[in-house]
Amino acid sequence: MKHEDATLPRRALLQKTAYALTALTAAPLLARCSSDAANGGGATEPTSPTGGALGAPSDEPLQIGMLLFPKFTLLDLVGPHAALALHGEVHFVYRALEPVPSDSGVPLTATTTYDDCPLDLDVLFVPGGFVADAMGDPDVLKFLTDRAPRAKFVTSVCTGSLVLAAAGLLDGYRATSHWLSLEDLRMFDVDVVEERVVIDRNRMTGGGVTAGVDFGLVLLSQLRGEETGKRQQLMLEYAPQPPYDTGEPSLAGPELVMQVRTIMKPLGDKIRTATEEAVQRLKAG
Amino acid sequence: MKHEDATLPRRALLQKTAYALTALTAAPLLARCSSDAANGGGATEPTSPTGGALGAPSDEPLQIGMLLFPKFTLLDLVGPHAALALHGEVHFVYRALEPVPSDSGVPLTATTTYDDCPLDLDVLFVPGGFVADAMGDPDVLKFLTDRAPRAKFVTSVCTGSLVLAAAGLLDGYRATSHWLSLEDLRMFDVDVVEERVVIDRNRMTGGGVTAGVDFGLVLLSQLRGEETGKRQQLMLEYAPQPPYDTGEPSLAGPELVMQVRTIMKPLGDKIRTATEEAVQRLKAG
Repeated sequence: MKHEDATLPRRALLQKTAYALTALTAAPLLARCSSDAANGGGATEPTSPTGGALGAPSDEPLQIGMLLFPKFTLLDLVGPHAALALHGEVHFVYRALEPVPSDSGVPLTATTTYDDCPLDLDVLFVPGGFVADAMGDPDVLKFLTDRAPRAKFVTSVCTGSLVLAAAGLLDGYRATSHWLSLEDLRMFDVDVVEERVVIDRNRMTGGGVTAGVDFGLVLLSQLRGEETGKRQQLMLEYAPQPPYDTGEPSLAGPELVMQVRTIMKPLGDKIRTATEEAVQRLKAG
Repeated sequence: MKHEDATLPRRALLQKTAYALTALTAAPLLARCSSDAANGGGATEPTSPTGGALGAPSDEPLQIGMLLFPKFTLLDLVGPHAALALHGEVHFVYRALEPVPSDSGVPLTATTTYDDCPLDLDVLFVPGGFVADAMGDPDVLKFLTDRAPRAKFVTSVCTGSLVLAAAGLLDGYRATSHWLSLEDLRMFDVDVVEERVVIDRNRMTGGGVTAGVDFGLVLLSQLRGEETGKRQQLMLEYAPQPPYDTGEPSLAGPELVMQVRTIMKPLGDKIRTATEEAVQRLKAG
């Protein structure tokens, strides 16, 4: 009884502190939003994708580098972005400060280059999509192998893991990919796991496309603690209700799986070729 | 027995036809992707967010109008976009062909204007975010009230429903919003429902942020049939595994709810004022 009594004030204090911190650290974010709004609705120039710091005051804003390449899959990137952006500064990395078209054609504009991206990242992230070219692009591979050893987390969603693998960054690690590309990932020296979010030491990989939301919240929790992850999940109202039970091949059945394989075959063939070339290159050292 | 025997060849034929159609209709999409890739990775200009047609050959590409406004929430829009874009042509609508910053700062560039957007849309869509200004913007309201009566579906995700309501387009309809804004939506003549995706006649509204993925797949199914929705869900690998059980207020508990309310209060206050003004305006006719 005594023990319980003693803990109550401490819990109440912690709760009050949590509220105070939340209100305090939200202020810069909201001030920024208000000030931006005051600058007029019809912005004529892209603004920097920089969020305010929304962690504890002692936390520096996270430095997040997200690789862009032509025909990346937009939702692969925007899912994690929605989980992480408020808690740090997001850099979209490409060879030039240009719009880079996603696979649906909608572009995102790079905010930094391979050279200018901060050296020490909390998160180095690669989305999936039409990855074949990126898997063989010396500049992409150089950027990734340069930043990865200094990054707190080296990460991907969907077929982004194939780009990390092509850079040799998943050798000896457990990792995953979109279900259509698990066979490609197995051709590397990677311990392939069919799970939605896979953490092995500081490598974190997510499954296909929508897995980026789960991935982003797990990654945020690793960086900022469970409480922040839980709060972010509530802000994003992430209580999913998929309309069907067809979100993975074992559930969807052979007919739907064959249909998707057929649709994706030309892309899959290119990725297979890029995988074979990358494996050869890595073997040759 | 005879009946079953007779149906088998028919089912097999339908399946074969489905594969053939899938392969056939995927060809333009994939040809487009290859041709874009051949045009060089480093695109210097935003390309049009146009997907190929991926439905049955008899289906015209869907015409989808997505409203942009400063500080829309990127994932509110990108979730439905991921479900729908391959099946039609997506128009990002704003007053000018400019980049429009989302609430994290990441901009999307408008591809058409209020005047030039196609008149007959299959989907008229409004994302949520910092909606207060849009709720009182005469040009936004004029665009919505002009296109809505001609649209096949009038839709929103998150607080986008407040913009539809401010245009009088949800009067007498069942609809939903982000959990933080349900009280605002109740101030209109709307039958507010606390569900993730709400369909009432041709109005379809989704809950907060991540509900856009569920919403998009349900909407695709309404437009293209269940089989297409199921296949799209498999392509997006939508078998969610949220890390926590905190995705809605009834699950998250009062402490987290209060934290999020505190963080969002300045935004919530602006939305409340805009709601009061819109309700007065609608009453005055």
